[in-house]
Amino acid sequence: MFAPRSVAIIGASATANKVGHVILQNYLDAGYAGKIYPINTKEASILGLKAYPSVLSVKDVIDLAVIAVPAQVVPQVLEECGKAKIKNVVVVSGGFAEMGNTNLQNKLVDISKKYGIALIGPNCLGLLDSRSRVDTLFLPTYKLSKPKIGGVSFVAQSGAVGSTVLDLISKEGFGLSKFVSYGNAAVVDETDILKFLADDEDTKVIIVYMEGVQRGKEFVELAKEITRKKPIIVIKGGVTPGSAGAVHSHTASLSGSFAAYQAVFRQFGFIVADDLSELLHFAKIFSTEPMPKGNRVAIVTNGGGAGVLETDEVFLNGLQLAEFSKETQSSLQKSLPPIVAIRNPLDLVGDADDKRYETALNALSKDKNVDMMIVIALFQTPGADSRLVSTLIGFKQNMQIPMAVLSPGSDYTAVHKMMMESSGIPVYDSPGAAAKSLSKLLEYSKFLSRGKS
Amino acid sequence: MFAPRSVAIIGASATANKVGHVILQNYLDAGYAGKIYPINTKEASILGLKAYPSVLSVKDVIDLAVIAVPAQVVPQVLEECGKAKIKNVVVVSGGFAEMGNTNLQNKLVDISKKYGIALIGPNCLGLLDSRSRVDTLFLPTYKLSKPKIGGVSFVAQSGAVGSTVLDLISKEGFGLSKFVSYGNAAVVDETDILKFLADDEDTKVIIVYMEGVQRGKEFVELAKEITRKKPIIVIKGGVTPGSAGAVHSHTASLSGSFAAYQAVFRQFGFIVADDLSELLHFAKIFSTEPMPKGNRVAIVTNGGGAGVLETDEVFLNGLQLAEFSKETQSSLQKSLPPIVAIRNPLDLVGDADDKRYETALNALSKDKNVDMMIVIALFQTPGADSRLVSTLIGFKQNMQIPMAVLSPGSDYTAVHKMMMESSGIPVYDSPGAAAKSLSKLLEYSKFLSRGKS
Repeated sequence: MFAPRSVAIIGASATANKVGHVILQNYLDAGYAGKIYPINTKEASILGLKAYPSVLSVKDVIDLAVIAVPAQVVPQVLEECGKAKIKNVVVVSGGFAEMGNTNLQNKLVDISKKYGIALIGPNCLGLLDSRSRVDTLFLPTYKLSKPKIGGVSFVAQSGAVGSTVLDLISKEGFGLSKFVSYGNAAVVDETDILKFLADDEDTKVIIVYMEGVQRGKEFVELAKEITRKKPIIVIKGGVTPGSAGAVHSHTASLSGSFAAYQAVFRQFGFIVADDLSELLHFAKIFSTEPMPKGNRVAIVTNGGGAGVLETDEVFLNGLQLAEFSKETQSSLQKSLPPIVAIRNPLDLVGDADDKRYETALNALSKDKNVDMMIVIALFQTPGADSRLVSTLIGFKQNMQIPMAVLSPGSDYTAVHKMMMESSGIPVYDSPGAAAKSLSKLLEYSKFLSRGKS
Repeated sequence: MFAPRSVAIIGASATANKVGHVILQNYLDAGYAGKIYPINTKEASILGLKAYPSVLSVKDVIDLAVIAVPAQVVPQVLEECGKAKIKNVVVVSGGFAEMGNTNLQNKLVDISKKYGIALIGPNCLGLLDSRSRVDTLFLPTYKLSKPKIGGVSFVAQSGAVGSTVLDLISKEGFGLSKFVSYGNAAVVDETDILKFLADDEDTKVIIVYMEGVQRGKEFVELAKEITRKKPIIVIKGGVTPGSAGAVHSHTASLSGSFAAYQAVFRQFGFIVADDLSELLHFAKIFSTEPMPKGNRVAIVTNGGGAGVLETDEVFLNGLQLAEFSKETQSSLQKSLPPIVAIRNPLDLVGDADDKRYETALNALSKDKNVDMMIVIALFQTPGADSRLVSTLIGFKQNMQIPMAVLSPGSDYTAVHKMMMESSGIPVYDSPGAAAKSLSKLLEYSKFLSRGKS
């Protein structure tokens, strides 16, 4: 499904903006290395590729078929896929159960069972794999930046949330392994997809947008297993009385109040995001940082006020300030200028440069009283520049404890943020996001050790 | 102070990177229209301007002096300012009470009293006025983007938080009127500054970062008055046990737990931001939107999942979904395609274009059951483009109720976000930010009407 050597695009079209055109164009643009077979009943060639009237006329093995034809025609072409022994099919076409056409959707289920087809959809965006460059998304590339290759896989029932989050991930330093938007989940559902990602070596962190769950019991059993192996960060839509009404397309096996959900999720070891932005904040820290051993945070800053705000957020998120060891204190005292008060948060003051950060981090990274580190680097100050970035990247490579960097700002800061993130340092825009993300690492770390004891 | 016809820069320097050089360069770069007098004991001219050995040798009236010389020399040049009848002085130099040199700082207080000087600082960034282009910030412009002209004024005790937030504001659609970083508050303190901004016609919204308050009683009395006239959005550093220790420079007259602060602030009608990012989220909506009459929200979306998430956030923030009137329902039923279910959130589905939004907004904006509007425009979808932006801008101009737009995304979205924001539409990146910002408008609206009854 994710690494096909050949793909048939059924409904491939020569007409720009048609779904079947955009998908074919995206495959070509992405540099997909396998064979592409456009299927079109009328055209002899599309976008320079030979076209075929049916998958049955292709004399090669087809690993994946993408179906983008009107709903009424889908059963027929799916039947042809079955006859052509195609085992993986994505149906992007809408017009099925979500519009009340349950019978038409049931036909797809029956055909899939008959031929043993793993069918994703209908009514979905389908798949994106950054490595194999499989890309069934029918959204114009100029509207939607694609993420780079990475270890985060993303599962979204909703196509719109899916594409929006993909677009947001493209701005982040962490990259994407696989994306699945599974729409009506007629055959393959969230449980199947999670089962696959659990065993997928490229997937280190799973993030999920879900509204309902099809097979509650199986899902719970599976989730319990997976969260022991890799973190699952989830945002659940429809947690309040008002939105439960808006989620009407699925029979949710898990249902009830927000608090009830939270409790169940916590028991599974799921990391719960309370807002869309948190899905990204948490994915960022889970994809680069090791597990913390405790909740004692050291804060280093070049801005006093920012240190104060970060300290507030540390406490509000259930963490606490580390008390520096005697050795650390005397080492800092000796090596830092007298203007720096030796305390936590450690305010290196507004003219701090890379050397001063290096001195501070050298001492702090050896301190056994420190479980996590928040480095505040305000690039608006005179001494903070790309040399500070180099220093932080150097430290990061030998760091045994989790670290987050706080660097809010606009253009100049954005460049330095990008440098840090592409070297695996998680960078945040606000004190709250940094502290809450670290607190989630700790929550997961506690969950893992609870299971061991 | 904010609109001087002439400025003396004491300590202006020909050496790049020196504070007195950066300030002078910034004045020149910003296109300040008044007269600039560089004061330097050695140079005859700096950056092409004639330099003077002392303010006393300038034969013109000087409205504002900026002092950027070593701490020990400040009393002497301040004395000269007094003799030259300069009434407004900003001392950016550090090395006073914040380093234990209380006596030296007291000298500045005495001299200011003797000559009736309004002194800001020492140990501060000073002033920025987007209109008059007064700019005493000694930070290189390439590190710190300056905001455009607008109605938000920003007061920050901390220079680092100040410059970071200025840099962040530069990315927002709302602009800045005045910025004051007042440092040690030896003479002019937060109460004086707020008093000035209360009467300043260009200032529509005040945002404040504060750690401590100098004159608690006066501050409270003043705050009570101002919040009746214009909103004050505040983020308070040092609200937790750990950070209260880090805030050690001031005697806070207001002190106590986070909860106690929250209660006092609410009584004043202050809008409290819980994180740095919220300071900007709230400033954005307060600078463009009218007060809501109630808590009933209409949500229009081109993504079902995003509508579900926004609905959750509406409830979690104490708002509720509007129930559309019979007229609205039948008008929507008649004019929207059958695929759109007539309900709130109103999901116009993924292929919605500007026409479909126009139809929906036309009906909803007339509905008396709707107190606020959240429009979700996911620009990753095929139908959302700059025509949708034009439609929203058109509606905004005649809109009587507050509206927020949710448009998360990267490059393509950013362009459209900028278009909307420069036309006064507040745009958010996450469902939580949009709902919470609207809920703060409602909170303030209730505060205002409480006072009236």
